[in-house]
Amino acid sequence: MGAVAQRLRDGSGGLNGNGAGQSCRLTVLGATGSIGQSTLDLVARNPEAFEVVAVTAQCHVQELAEIARRTQAKLAVIGDETMLGALRDALSGSGVRVAAGADALVDAAREPADCVMAAIVGAAGIRPTFAAVEQGRRIALANKECLVSAGDVFTAEVKRCGAELLPVDSEHSAAFQALAGADADAIEKIVLTASGGPFRTWSMDQLAAATPEQALKHPNWSMGSKVTIDSATLMNKGLELIEAFHLFPVGVDALDCVVHPQSIVHCLVSYKDGSVLAQLAPPDMRTPIAVALAWPRRMAAPTEKLDLARLGSLTFEAPDEVRFPALRVAKAALRRGETAPAVLNAANEIAVAAFLQKRLAFLDIARLVEETIDAAEKVGAIAPARCLEDILSIDAAARRLAAEQLARYDAP
Amino acid sequence: MGAVAQRLRDGSGGLNGNGAGQSCRLTVLGATGSIGQSTLDLVARNPEAFEVVAVTAQCHVQELAEIARRTQAKLAVIGDETMLGALRDALSGSGVRVAAGADALVDAAREPADCVMAAIVGAAGIRPTFAAVEQGRRIALANKECLVSAGDVFTAEVKRCGAELLPVDSEHSAAFQALAGADADAIEKIVLTASGGPFRTWSMDQLAAATPEQALKHPNWSMGSKVTIDSATLMNKGLELIEAFHLFPVGVDALDCVVHPQSIVHCLVSYKDGSVLAQLAPPDMRTPIAVALAWPRRMAAPTEKLDLARLGSLTFEAPDEVRFPALRVAKAALRRGETAPAVLNAANEIAVAAFLQKRLAFLDIARLVEETIDAAEKVGAIAPARCLEDILSIDAAARRLAAEQLARYDAP
Repeated sequence: MGAVAQRLRDGSGGLNGNGAGQSCRLTVLGATGSIGQSTLDLVARNPEAFEVVAVTAQCHVQELAEIARRTQAKLAVIGDETMLGALRDALSGSGVRVAAGADALVDAAREPADCVMAAIVGAAGIRPTFAAVEQGRRIALANKECLVSAGDVFTAEVKRCGAELLPVDSEHSAAFQALAGADADAIEKIVLTASGGPFRTWSMDQLAAATPEQALKHPNWSMGSKVTIDSATLMNKGLELIEAFHLFPVGVDALDCVVHPQSIVHCLVSYKDGSVLAQLAPPDMRTPIAVALAWPRRMAAPTEKLDLARLGSLTFEAPDEVRFPALRVAKAALRRGETAPAVLNAANEIAVAAFLQKRLAFLDIARLVEETIDAAEKVGAIAPARCLEDILSIDAAARRLAAEQLARYDAP
Repeated sequence: MGAVAQRLRDGSGGLNGNGAGQSCRLTVLGATGSIGQSTLDLVARNPEAFEVVAVTAQCHVQELAEIARRTQAKLAVIGDETMLGALRDALSGSGVRVAAGADALVDAAREPADCVMAAIVGAAGIRPTFAAVEQGRRIALANKECLVSAGDVFTAEVKRCGAELLPVDSEHSAAFQALAGADADAIEKIVLTASGGPFRTWSMDQLAAATPEQALKHPNWSMGSKVTIDSATLMNKGLELIEAFHLFPVGVDALDCVVHPQSIVHCLVSYKDGSVLAQLAPPDMRTPIAVALAWPRRMAAPTEKLDLARLGSLTFEAPDEVRFPALRVAKAALRRGETAPAVLNAANEIAVAAFLQKRLAFLDIARLVEETIDAAEKVGAIAPARCLEDILSIDAAARRLAAEQLARYDAP
């Protein structure tokens, strides 16, 4: 735990990190996704501050080619190998090198850069992000799986390589800023906020009948469907508590969450003298991205300014783990430790996909995840992970176990 | 401006500041007041961390003697010279040195110490606090007049002597923490919160008839009567904006305030990337005092813990400068600069005293202050101050001008 608390102030990798006046060499893994696009928006507004090294995408080949041309990237890599020809055609005459496939994504992450935005979504992001860590420079981390599934292994690798980890998630960026390099013994609590999602005020009966269409209507953020469902179950907050455990120098008991429907306050850090430092911002991922790129400096971001008097009121309520059992299940996995969070994450992906396909009821998402963790415990799959291969094999095993559990459920 | 932004991280003067494991030699100027007593409460809870050097009071001689015995202070000084005998009697056989008078207060401030808590209220605190600054160690500043009246001269002296200034006011401590040593060009705004006082929702007609008894009922804080009236007029927030201007590296346009009736959020700092860092705490001065004593570390304080879910809601509204003209008058004095804030402060003291004596109506407090500033401008008394003597003579002149204005008012 506490991987982020190192090298807060020397700013080795970020904006101007490689010498005054020089631009930051930046690689964007997952350039066509939401975080990637927001990153490139900031880069476009500060063209003299950045030099784009490599950009990658999984399958959006035309968008990737357009980004590579626009940013004058040196390298464009598409994850789907069948698209190499299309990428080559789209970039012919541009001078941009092209490559394709999973290994090429890893190679892209290894290109010399001052900062790597690790924004590939899901388990596919793990290997490229580990490769970026090996460089020992700044990692702006948007991929959740590196911490949720591979936390112990990943943070050990960050330390070994002397890399600098800056979280891009809004809650963890908020915690990072509110911690400001404080000593671990000064911190009493880190409280992440949760919007409560679209079902915050729903009864158990209503939740039992909730449909994917209803769950996909998030009140504050526009995100991918997996994350939006996680936000409706509060699993998202559970996963974020696991991430926070690995990022910050506090134990499980010092981590908590509070429901805050306006999504303006993103995290609160309590200190032992009674002080609480909080970070607030209108919901716009360009703020945490700008923090990660420029820290310990600040760069301008074209976001809406917070106007508290116009907002009027910020409200808070305790999360309800009865109506939102995913939060309880995730906390239990965090306490269990070892590979329990990896199993939780894999089982949740299977459960959410099944819910979106209407093969699983909303409240059964957490039930399926809990049953999968129990099943994994029984077969001895909850154990310390020594390396990335351990994590990847547990992830695969957990998906199989979850699919077995899923077969027992009737479609709702 | 910006006196506090220096030496944020080296922590030369505070807790453990004079070497690992050694205690902090602490002098408390104004030991019998509210801030002094809260300071000594924290000291009593951490006896191994502090060594009390000198304690002072203006006239509460028995309380001072009791404090000196309890803390095993080396020196006790009473401001009122007529009380020297009483102090000597009360401390006979204790081994505590005693002294009395204004010069003795200044001498007490010069005693070698790692940290001086400058908590003498009013203009009487100016000379002793300047004397403490000369030592070039940490000043925990609770006295407002050093910054409001003597800001330019005081901050120049802080720089010249290499002293370290830590604000003890809850709003400025909050700003200090939310700034965390940020570069000036990263900061977009510093917003202090105001409770709005007991008359927050009152109409102009009600305000015109407000009595001292009504004004003294502050909703959140228990403070002296002068500060409580300033809180009812919002002059307090105006004075704090002037202090903030001298403490932090921002210009007048970057300073503002917002009404927040719960007094939980004390200050918000907006950065150019859209991030806003805020400090929150239940109203208890031991929190900002602990911050000032221990920074950059944190010390435990026995304060109520913030529970946002129980609190439920934090509300914000724009301050109304029509119903609370003192805020407008103070902002104008800040913009005018030079000795205008010193005149503002002196005139306000006269006006508040007259209001408490029922010689002036509530809404006439700001009017009298504004008229005094205008009168001072006319006689050329708004001018640059070169030294402390300039400030003290302007302060005296402003009090005379305010008294002249006051004579024209009928008692309400």
